[in-house]
Amino acid sequence: MRTSIATVCLSGTLDEKLAAASLAGFDGVEIFEPDLVASPHSPEQIRGRAKELSLTLDLYQPFRDFEGVGPELLEQNLRRAEAKFALMNRLGIDTMLLCSNVATARSGDEQLAAAQLCQLGDAAERYGVRVAYEALAWGRFVDSYEAAARIVRLADHPRIGLCLDSFHILSKGHSPEAIETIAADKIFFVQMADAPLLSLDVLSWSRHHRLFPGEGGFQLGEFMAHLVRTGYDGPVSLEIFNDTFRQSDPVATAIDARRSLRWLEHETAMALGDRGGGRAARMSTRRLPEVAQPADVNYVELRTAALPALRQLLSQLGFRSHGRHRTKNVELWSQGDARIVLGAPDRQSRQPTVAGIGLSVDDPAPALRRAEDLFAPEVPREQGAGEETLVGVRAPDGSEVFFGAAGGTEPGWVSEFGTADDAAGPDLIERVDHINLAQPWQHFDAAVLFLRSVLDLHAEASTEVAAPVGLVRSQVLHSADGVVRVALNLVPSGAADDAILPQHIAFAASDVLSLARAARERGFTPLDIPANYYDDIGARYQIETALLDELRELNVMYDHDESGEFLHFYTGPIGTVFLEVVERRDGYSGYGALNAPIRLAAQYQHRRAAQVVPE
Amino acid sequence: MRTSIATVCLSGTLDEKLAAASLAGFDGVEIFEPDLVASPHSPEQIRGRAKELSLTLDLYQPFRDFEGVGPELLEQNLRRAEAKFALMNRLGIDTMLLCSNVATARSGDEQLAAAQLCQLGDAAERYGVRVAYEALAWGRFVDSYEAAARIVRLADHPRIGLCLDSFHILSKGHSPEAIETIAADKIFFVQMADAPLLSLDVLSWSRHHRLFPGEGGFQLGEFMAHLVRTGYDGPVSLEIFNDTFRQSDPVATAIDARRSLRWLEHETAMALGDRGGGRAARMSTRRLPEVAQPADVNYVELRTAALPALRQLLSQLGFRSHGRHRTKNVELWSQGDARIVLGAPDRQSRQPTVAGIGLSVDDPAPALRRAEDLFAPEVPREQGAGEETLVGVRAPDGSEVFFGAAGGTEPGWVSEFGTADDAAGPDLIERVDHINLAQPWQHFDAAVLFLRSVLDLHAEASTEVAAPVGLVRSQVLHSADGVVRVALNLVPSGAADDAILPQHIAFAASDVLSLARAARERGFTPLDIPANYYDDIGARYQIETALLDELRELNVMYDHDESGEFLHFYTGPIGTVFLEVVERRDGYSGYGALNAPIRLAAQYQHRRAAQVVPE
Repeated sequence: MRTSIATVCLSGTLDEKLAAASLAGFDGVEIFEPDLVASPHSPEQIRGRAKELSLTLDLYQPFRDFEGVGPELLEQNLRRAEAKFALMNRLGIDTMLLCSNVATARSGDEQLAAAQLCQLGDAAERYGVRVAYEALAWGRFVDSYEAAARIVRLADHPRIGLCLDSFHILSKGHSPEAIETIAADKIFFVQMADAPLLSLDVLSWSRHHRLFPGEGGFQLGEFMAHLVRTGYDGPVSLEIFNDTFRQSDPVATAIDARRSLRWLEHETAMALGDRGGGRAARMSTRRLPEVAQPADVNYVELRTAALPALRQLLSQLGFRSHGRHRTKNVELWSQGDARIVLGAPDRQSRQPTVAGIGLSVDDPAPALRRAEDLFAPEVPREQGAGEETLVGVRAPDGSEVFFGAAGGTEPGWVSEFGTADDAAGPDLIERVDHINLAQPWQHFDAAVLFLRSVLDLHAEASTEVAAPVGLVRSQVLHSADGVVRVALNLVPSGAADDAILPQHIAFAASDVLSLARAARERGFTPLDIPANYYDDIGARYQIETALLDELRELNVMYDHDESGEFLHFYTGPIGTVFLEVVERRDGYSGYGALNAPIRLAAQYQHRRAAQVVPE
Repeated sequence: MRTSIATVCLSGTLDEKLAAASLAGFDGVEIFEPDLVASPHSPEQIRGRAKELSLTLDLYQPFRDFEGVGPELLEQNLRRAEAKFALMNRLGIDTMLLCSNVATARSGDEQLAAAQLCQLGDAAERYGVRVAYEALAWGRFVDSYEAAARIVRLADHPRIGLCLDSFHILSKGHSPEAIETIAADKIFFVQMADAPLLSLDVLSWSRHHRLFPGEGGFQLGEFMAHLVRTGYDGPVSLEIFNDTFRQSDPVATAIDARRSLRWLEHETAMALGDRGGGRAARMSTRRLPEVAQPADVNYVELRTAALPALRQLLSQLGFRSHGRHRTKNVELWSQGDARIVLGAPDRQSRQPTVAGIGLSVDDPAPALRRAEDLFAPEVPREQGAGEETLVGVRAPDGSEVFFGAAGGTEPGWVSEFGTADDAAGPDLIERVDHINLAQPWQHFDAAVLFLRSVLDLHAEASTEVAAPVGLVRSQVLHSADGVVRVALNLVPSGAADDAILPQHIAFAASDVLSLARAARERGFTPLDIPANYYDDIGARYQIETALLDELRELNVMYDHDESGEFLHFYTGPIGTVFLEVVERRDGYSGYGALNAPIRLAAQYQHRRAAQVVPE
């Protein structure tokens, strides 16, 4: 699959955009006209620069408002097009994108449009270039790819073909099936965009909310399968208008973009199935290395300057210390199958507080190969003699994901630490229930794609939670069996302070009330939940008075769903992290979403109280 | 008009919200249930706190999903409601908001809903409270105020009335006229919200994009006029769900909110006209002090650490120095009727670079009274003996607006500076054409309301411009005669750096090409516009070759509209400000919007070049 990306997807100058696309391994780029016009370099210099970077210049775009006009305007439009064809010759670009007319068309007569495109084709012929006609979803007369295909068929000109854009097709609910009826040599270009499923006018949706494939809700593997079956073998390109990408580091965005196309290639191969694309198919589509779902969260690595406070907290919750690692400056705490690797922050690498997640997999080797195939950089790791091999990759937010072999009562690397303390009591905590990662706004969509593609997690519907400082968008991704669950939280962009939305680890306990009581006896102070909360749930649910009193006494929160109940409590924040302990009764499958605003407010209150200097 | 605000409009804890509402001068508040539940204070403590702050507690909200259910659920719902009534008694709140059922209603039978509301009314009676039923725009069966009014009429219970919310009515395109058919004693509560005119599903629109009255596109004065004619005299409250307000300083938001209701009161009085609201009307609605439109931009005050560079630039553009002010540490530069007051930044007051705008008005006294009536804080100003009286107020971004008397060839205060230099040439600059203010994202909507209400400027449609670091939302406001024009630019939230979107002043010149040439002879270097731009406009427009060459030579940009042409050039950025000179030929009325992305890219390139350390 030949990959391309429109320069409009990336922030910065044209130079910076080209460099980012090249670094991320794209084969080519589309040149978005305003990027060229704003560049201080001549078309010849840009052509030279692309060559140095091993990038092909695949498309010049967009040319607008050409067809369906009266004779006078047509003449002007042809003159305007010829100036662009001459420019394309200087750039060495052979294809121009023509959008269906939105502003100046007076007629929807397809014969007329075809005749005018023919004239444009004759002009293109003189410059040795060709024109890819695209139906915009908001075109005045031509707003479906089937209409555009009819006009191109009527024009019947070797220099006039189609550009297919998944957004313009799927956003209107049009079926992509009829793509298979189009002759491959009439498909000049393909742009693939994903998007969240919004009920927004299609123009605003397109201009602000497009996403890279795999980050939204469109079925793009199916779409691509139709395309492959036509025999199309040209570039598969990304033209993504997105408010966030426009503001983000272009290199990070380009890597995210390149990953999305690798994921799309895999999804396409899956959609095509074992029989491939049939006899006509020419595009090669490779699947990703197949990996089993992670069997378990092996460990979570926390890096924090508040080590003494976190040690105390873990100890109060019943964790045992295993002491320091044989060669590395980290320590291990465990309880049941929950393991926390604890260390001081490495200032140079800008790690988030949840610096690493270890996953148990059947075989780490293919998991790593899959991650590398998806452009996830491998994390170099020093390995002492006799130490277990762990391989890992870096996630978009800078944290690390390590793969270790599943099986046995405990992972081999545990013995690289000291012997565990005696337990203070029974192991009430059983394992990590979920990991809650606050994501900076620039990395949220990229993090979703990373977890979906590299770890093959499934994305649940996203929700929004009101915090005292803004709305927090939250998206849970989980493995097929629900053993690995990661919640991503999008920090409100106005909340510059890290502390406003800390990361958190939730542990699964067999008996959260006993644990809360035992922890209290060890000096633990939970996050203080207001009395009003217990009055409210008392009015809202049928909770027995004895249980309600116990919840209130222990600051334990409550929720239920159709299958069961959920009891959970929180620690206060320790720097930029806090802990939660949850008990899922009878298959409760949520995360206590209704309680989240109360918890966020209690944390805000806690922070405010800590800021107040007593008089 | 009694004013109220829902606590959900403001950020922070309930304590912080109450304090902000009180400080801004609201009469009362609506208590949003999650704010109460999350508060560590008991209902009695909250009641006491509101009393201390002279705030009435006007509404407890929201209660959901009550009516249209089966008998078993009804019983649960009644029990739930009674718990809330008891809570309201503790808070001292007499009205509860009941939203039309969105989730659990099984029947749309209005008789059934009315009978169930009657049962609820009986329960309310026992607690001495009442219920205001509101049709949500997305209610399952009841989604219009007329349906809600029918049900309330059928219920015919003294404790059951209506809550009218302008958003739920106007967002669905329902006419508010039929409000006049509702008996005043059946309207228990009124919530007023504005919103931008979006084509978004009504739920998302409501939850993220509501605005305070005067900041969006709804005709709220007309809406209120219908309400006043019924005889309603209860609170007019704001329930605004807005992503930005949730993240902003609650005091600033509350003042913006209070201003919006004062503006709405004025608009209501205007809509009612001289005959008022008819015999039934009981609500008092005062107009704002009437003021004439500003006659001119008297001066612009710039505060910058880059004084020497800015002096040089003004001198190159042909401005004359008048030297220092008699008593203040600022200097004056002028050309034609364009005047720049220049000074070093006052670090303590956090002024933006465009620290002040002076406007000539017929009579400064009513202009100030109007501003004060709109909660704009007066700026204290030291006035030396014999100096002209200038009165001013502070805008949401911290800048100042000063009113001076119009008339005469030049303002009296000019003589408080020294004598002007001799002119270097003819005065090619005539006056300030427009002022372009970058607004932090927290202040954008508030700035729109400030300019509309305090200065009576008219808002044009907002546009979006692509910058290399994100999309910039831009909104122009102008006086009726177009003499005063202010463009507000919303800085992308990711662009933390001030320098990314500087403020700018555009001067109107009679002959921009001669000015550009004369400035060049004085050593001026304009912002460098790429050659590709001139190739592009050459292909796009029919510009004579000689003119195109001159534009290219002088880095002057070009645009046209149906009436005339626009020629303009830019200076490089000086700290966080830059200057523009424009020539409007034959009544061109725009701002060169198509050129804005090119200019933004050129500025970005300029900054990047300045950052590069030569090897």
